[in-house]
Amino acid sequence: MYKFEELLPIFNSSLESEIELIKNRKPFHLYQPVVYTLNMGGKRIRPVVVLMAYSLFGKNIEEAIPVALAVELFHNFTLLHDDIMDKSTLRRNKKTVHVEYTQNTAILSGDAMSILAYEYLSKSNANNLMYLYEYFTSTALKVCEGQQLDMDFENRNNVTVDEYLNMIGLKTAALLAESFRLGAVAGNANFEASELLYQFGFNLGMAFQLQDDLLDSFGNTAEFGKNIGGDIAANKKTYLMLKSLELASEETFNNLTELLQNKSIERHEKIERTISIYTQLDIPSHINTEINSYYQKALQCIESLELDYKKEKALTEFASKLMARKS
Amino acid sequence: MYKFEELLPIFNSSLESEIELIKNRKPFHLYQPVVYTLNMGGKRIRPVVVLMAYSLFGKNIEEAIPVALAVELFHNFTLLHDDIMDKSTLRRNKKTVHVEYTQNTAILSGDAMSILAYEYLSKSNANNLMYLYEYFTSTALKVCEGQQLDMDFENRNNVTVDEYLNMIGLKTAALLAESFRLGAVAGNANFEASELLYQFGFNLGMAFQLQDDLLDSFGNTAEFGKNIGGDIAANKKTYLMLKSLELASEETFNNLTELLQNKSIERHEKIERTISIYTQLDIPSHINTEINSYYQKALQCIESLELDYKKEKALTEFASKLMARKS
Repeated sequence: MYKFEELLPIFNSSLESEIELIKNRKPFHLYQPVVYTLNMGGKRIRPVVVLMAYSLFGKNIEEAIPVALAVELFHNFTLLHDDIMDKSTLRRNKKTVHVEYTQNTAILSGDAMSILAYEYLSKSNANNLMYLYEYFTSTALKVCEGQQLDMDFENRNNVTVDEYLNMIGLKTAALLAESFRLGAVAGNANFEASELLYQFGFNLGMAFQLQDDLLDSFGNTAEFGKNIGGDIAANKKTYLMLKSLELASEETFNNLTELLQNKSIERHEKIERTISIYTQLDIPSHINTEINSYYQKALQCIESLELDYKKEKALTEFASKLMARKS
Repeated sequence: MYKFEELLPIFNSSLESEIELIKNRKPFHLYQPVVYTLNMGGKRIRPVVVLMAYSLFGKNIEEAIPVALAVELFHNFTLLHDDIMDKSTLRRNKKTVHVEYTQNTAILSGDAMSILAYEYLSKSNANNLMYLYEYFTSTALKVCEGQQLDMDFENRNNVTVDEYLNMIGLKTAALLAESFRLGAVAGNANFEASELLYQFGFNLGMAFQLQDDLLDSFGNTAEFGKNIGGDIAANKKTYLMLKSLELASEETFNNLTELLQNKSIERHEKIERTISIYTQLDIPSHINTEINSYYQKALQCIESLELDYKKEKALTEFASKLMARKS
């Protein structure tokens, strides 16, 4: 069983059992927000990736379940703390933890979630648990570094496209990459195979994040599931904006700067004018080239793995479905 | 070498080298507050305890240094996040991180510190690294649970002495206990010995925290190093207060309640009147009995360890100096 769709219910049923156990932990006020967060849903991509990568090499998926839970707990911990830092009030159409409870609760329950992630990791009986700890920790730190860079960029006017790519690599792609590697390592894959899966996940993660940037400005609202132009309205320095600033003539550069700085421009107009500049500069084509380049690198990693047909197909299908998503 | 005073400079010199390395990590804004926090000083009790416990069993202290660093990083992470939650502006006479930098920085750098703690742990080449991870994680979670209970107590009027003892056990004593156990485990101590050292540290930690409560109301200001009555002024539900509420006659209970609730009572008067009730109810003698009971239990653990004379003496001396401290 290698397919995402087959593995998702397995993970979900483990997660549900764990949520029941966490509900009984005390003190109530520490663990209740953890349960709240885990019940918010989400696509569970990373934990299922752990199981998928495991199943390419290992036979007893129970070994990988605690690793998958660790990854999901860690991911949710980062969302919880990011929401405080970004002052976000909604996530997946529910109140964020610091709004539903208090900020202190959100800080401390987040801390507990990150430690719980390690507790789950420790429950795996994989032979290579030591490597799992090391890899997990190195990536956890990368995610923090990425978040810091993301916050740094808000206060800088000279961010380059390369810096941006480095940031999303740390903040987003690294954890998808690590989910593949952790699963592979838990399944006793050799070093080369687990590194290739890491690279596969990393390149796929980059393609995925860049596509997310693209869809935010050029997606179909109905399919994308959120309003078009959110990044533009929030002055986010995405690939689209940074590439535009890089390629713009002096006049267009000044127009973009005005759109970024002039707070009296109405939201709708700001989005429309920015998108029009993106189109004029052919930014969608630039970003598509970038997306495709990462995607092809990802596919090459699968090829280099020299897996048997069914396994290879599960990975390429996963990659293609991830990229085909519109929300 | 088993004595605290001999081991402290060894730890300090390792810490200084590590601080130099952390300074070079990027992004700067993530790691600078980590360096700031580590440079704030502190008594380094817990990390040196790791080395002390190690040196009772192991021969190569280098194995224990990363473990000691992990404990120090973790402890500082908890202080950093606690300071946000408590809105404290000063620690060790320096601005707290969320004041010196920003709250977001304090949240994220704290997160990074807790993960860095695991990174240090992973650097130990101790045979029993797996157990170190497990023990470290279980105690890290306890510290969060203790902090949550502490916050819960602020909003409750029916906290019992037993609940308070449970809370300080989790929030304070557990990490001292764990420092002893981690050092012992890193040094390849057997299960019984490492559990005895855990119990030694736990009971000593309880005695230490209760003595801290006592000194806050009955210490000599000059020796104690902070102003007398800080806990009373802040309405903290310490052992002294909870035991008083438990033993008080109806009249005294009402007086205490008034002192806790009537915000128009001036600070000095509030402290004086509360201390007078403590004295009247013989609370210092009650808490001293409690302190002594924990302290004796701690000493019994040392005896049960059946160490040779020099080692036993190092532990009893450490315990006695810790309790003799006035600040």
